[in-house]
Amino acid sequence: MRDFSADHRWLSINTATVRQQRGQDWPLLAILDACAARGIRAVAPWRDQVAAAGLQATAQRLREHGLALSGYCRGGMFTHTDAAGQQRVRDDNRRALDEACTLGAPCLVLVVGGLPGALTGRAAHRDIAGAREQVRQGIAELLQDARQRQMPLAIEPLHPMYAADRACINTLEQALDVCDALDPAQSGALGVAVDVYHVWWDPKLQQQIERAGASRLLALHVCDWLTPTTDLLNDRGMMGDGVIDIPRIRGWVEAQGYTGYSEVEIFSASNWWQRDGAEVLDTCIERHQRCV
Amino acid sequence: MRDFSADHRWLSINTATVRQQRGQDWPLLAILDACAARGIRAVAPWRDQVAAAGLQATAQRLREHGLALSGYCRGGMFTHTDAAGQQRVRDDNRRALDEACTLGAPCLVLVVGGLPGALTGRAAHRDIAGAREQVRQGIAELLQDARQRQMPLAIEPLHPMYAADRACINTLEQALDVCDALDPAQSGALGVAVDVYHVWWDPKLQQQIERAGASRLLALHVCDWLTPTTDLLNDRGMMGDGVIDIPRIRGWVEAQGYTGYSEVEIFSASNWWQRDGAEVLDTCIERHQRCV
Repeated sequence: MRDFSADHRWLSINTATVRQQRGQDWPLLAILDACAARGIRAVAPWRDQVAAAGLQATAQRLREHGLALSGYCRGGMFTHTDAAGQQRVRDDNRRALDEACTLGAPCLVLVVGGLPGALTGRAAHRDIAGAREQVRQGIAELLQDARQRQMPLAIEPLHPMYAADRACINTLEQALDVCDALDPAQSGALGVAVDVYHVWWDPKLQQQIERAGASRLLALHVCDWLTPTTDLLNDRGMMGDGVIDIPRIRGWVEAQGYTGYSEVEIFSASNWWQRDGAEVLDTCIERHQRCV
Repeated sequence: MRDFSADHRWLSINTATVRQQRGQDWPLLAILDACAARGIRAVAPWRDQVAAAGLQATAQRLREHGLALSGYCRGGMFTHTDAAGQQRVRDDNRRALDEACTLGAPCLVLVVGGLPGALTGRAAHRDIAGAREQVRQGIAELLQDARQRQMPLAIEPLHPMYAADRACINTLEQALDVCDALDPAQSGALGVAVDVYHVWWDPKLQQQIERAGASRLLALHVCDWLTPTTDLLNDRGMMGDGVIDIPRIRGWVEAQGYTGYSEVEIFSASNWWQRDGAEVLDTCIERHQRCV
């Protein structure tokens, strides 16, 4: 297991972590500048932040700073209620793939979607098995485009509390079942993103990380689970402030041969997004050395 | 599958559902009176409500109304940090068993506990595997007392969002692994409580219900998952108001031979607990006929 205590060379910042500072949007290019100024070597930008900054401007700023990507957030949201919806999903995911290529991402992270409509408060139906079949079909189709572009897809199982509205793939086991079905050769074109926030509770976590193996462990995301958690979406904790044994999970992942970045992804509406961005980045660096 | 549409003979009311009316505690004996007045045949009382009403007074009122129990809520909370804590847990669970016997419950429901201290905001450690081992040992020990009293224990897997602070048994598969280990003969002394709120998201739900079989399916709890869910504990929905396909899950349970009550258990601080208790009970009856 790599020693993270002496420096932060394996730290990546998911840009959602500093999406806001003092409650206001912090522009992506300024985030990249602040990361580079601290010797942070990698980031994982969100599509909406890239769109606001401009794709080419983002790519150029990344190059200027020599910043790598640990992943691109995110494609997916495959579920739909009609052919027009399916086509919108298809087109949008192809754009996401192209953007990931332009930015030099090592993978496109997939948040696969829940029951269609649920995210806006009105689910079109209650058929989660049907939603899961749509997801499987959507990934199968996107995988063809991804192979052509040599852009790996990383299925991110989301915590079961997001099953209704954000992602109906909710365990690593379930994600790997999809990988087995669609890429039985384990070619590297399809794998998983392990976010400790989503999977820490799973009694089969170690077993399924071992099942994944190095060729399918495409990303490692870290933050912490707070007690109490006051909001289902935007109350993630800084590493060390919660109950997740992050080093243990990282150890399991690295035991499989994972040598990539450890990406800090924190959504925190009432805490970190209210602070100064520089303070948040400095805290990420310190906690990454001490608690990851 | 039983037809629930014509009457509510298989409806049980978990008394937490009407713990409050108009934001104030509704005394348990009054709840029992209101249930009986509506032809509701069963309830599942909570220990704190029984303690407030008096154990003998509760037992007497149940007898007067001819009210059955669908379960007794609840034992468990097995995790601890020292021998004194372990002894407190042991004593408390034996009292819960005795109360369940006095009240004529068909089973004692177990919410097994999470990381010790987490429920009060400060987890003593991050070792969820260790907590799970304490839970296994605690159930093993309690099972001896339960067998003597012929009171079945029903392990209730709780939604993974409660893994840290309320229960580190989070899937039906995990609960049944414990059952297999501690009661391999499937004697009926140890089984599971299936609460659709906690397990609806699980891609292995049908498979694990089939694995459980009739002898281990000791209770069925119903309510609904709302989108959005605004509170991790107290924002459960009335059946029909959310995204859970309750009839499908009930069908899987009944296909195994389950013939017990369907118990409505709703925690709803901002909605149902603010209403008139009679209105809530009437709504439970109507929704149980239409949406369960």
